[in-house]
Amino acid sequence: MTSLRHNGPDQTDSPRDGYLDAARDCILDVGWRRTTLTEVARRAGVSRMTIYRTWADMPTLLGDLMTREWAGVVAATVAGEDPAAPTLDRLVADVVGTVRALRENELFVRIVELDPELLLPYLLSRRGRSQDAILALTEGQVREGQVDGTIRAGNPVAIARGLLLAAHGFVLSAHTMVDDHVSEDELDAELTVLLSRTLTP
Amino acid sequence: MTSLRHNGPDQTDSPRDGYLDAARDCILDVGWRRTTLTEVARRAGVSRMTIYRTWADMPTLLGDLMTREWAGVVAATVAGEDPAAPTLDRLVADVVGTVRALRENELFVRIVELDPELLLPYLLSRRGRSQDAILALTEGQVREGQVDGTIRAGNPVAIARGLLLAAHGFVLSAHTMVDDHVSEDELDAELTVLLSRTLTP
Repeated sequence: MTSLRHNGPDQTDSPRDGYLDAARDCILDVGWRRTTLTEVARRAGVSRMTIYRTWADMPTLLGDLMTREWAGVVAATVAGEDPAAPTLDRLVADVVGTVRALRENELFVRIVELDPELLLPYLLSRRGRSQDAILALTEGQVREGQVDGTIRAGNPVAIARGLLLAAHGFVLSAHTMVDDHVSEDELDAELTVLLSRTLTP
Repeated sequence: MTSLRHNGPDQTDSPRDGYLDAARDCILDVGWRRTTLTEVARRAGVSRMTIYRTWADMPTLLGDLMTREWAGVVAATVAGEDPAAPTLDRLVADVVGTVRALRENELFVRIVELDPELLLPYLLSRRGRSQDAILALTEGQVREGQVDGTIRAGNPVAIARGLLLAAHGFVLSAHTMVDDHVSEDELDAELTVLLSRTLTP
């Protein structure tokens, strides 16, 4: 798939983005555990101190990198939607599109392959910044759809969180459910039915 | 909560079940990583060789323990259902009930607390025996509901797998979505709406 790291001209404008690009390349090459701030500095062509001034340690850098990456995935999906479509249809297309894009994102795939334990805190302990950003976006669309009558009534925060919980499995585990009996497209069609029916008034 | 390990009188009939009970107690006490076959033998009051004859290593024992435990959770939930209710309603109640029971199961909670990386293979790599058993049960109920007209048409395998994927997040991550804005009961109500509407013809 195409890298999502360069979504627009201003994506790599700042030196900080260049350092994150270097970290991303390093993680894709050797995995998270073998990526050090020293190696990130070497790849970015700057001194170790320059990187240390921006991030005290690799977990902090990783948090920023993941936040940028997943925000890019969501932004690219939302940018592809039909602005004239009803709110319900846009929300469903956004969720299904984001699920597919995350599942195919090269950084996500590499983390799942080499360092899956990095995902555990965001599943078991606390929401990450990207999850909160996605929830805020979803909640806003639910409220909008409730106003224009395309989405059912109910606590929009609970509805948005329920959708995110339902989507988690389709991102992380869909491939464990694909074999001769069921294709990935069939599962995504199930997700579309699930979301549309859950949200319809 | 009540332990689900003794669901019926025949649950601990065999020596094997007694050894699994000893392993379960040990995992609850000190966690999976610090549980050894030697310690399981000590707690079960048998020789190390007796345990080794049944399980070559701790991963094999853990697989059997988890399979027994989750099967017990499902069986206890299904046993509590109203046999006169429509197939759709029984299936929804079974899934929501199993999700709640797993989330509160003491072995599951302990694994999530101390050894969450044990769950990763079943999320990211392959389905476990319990997941396959739950899928078979779900698929059977979907087929039944399709015959009696309470569940929509479609590939019952894809429908069952879609439901399981949607349920994963409600088991693993519901507590990360609970705060002043949303209660666990509200999330479970969202799951109920999601399942009912997804399955209705």
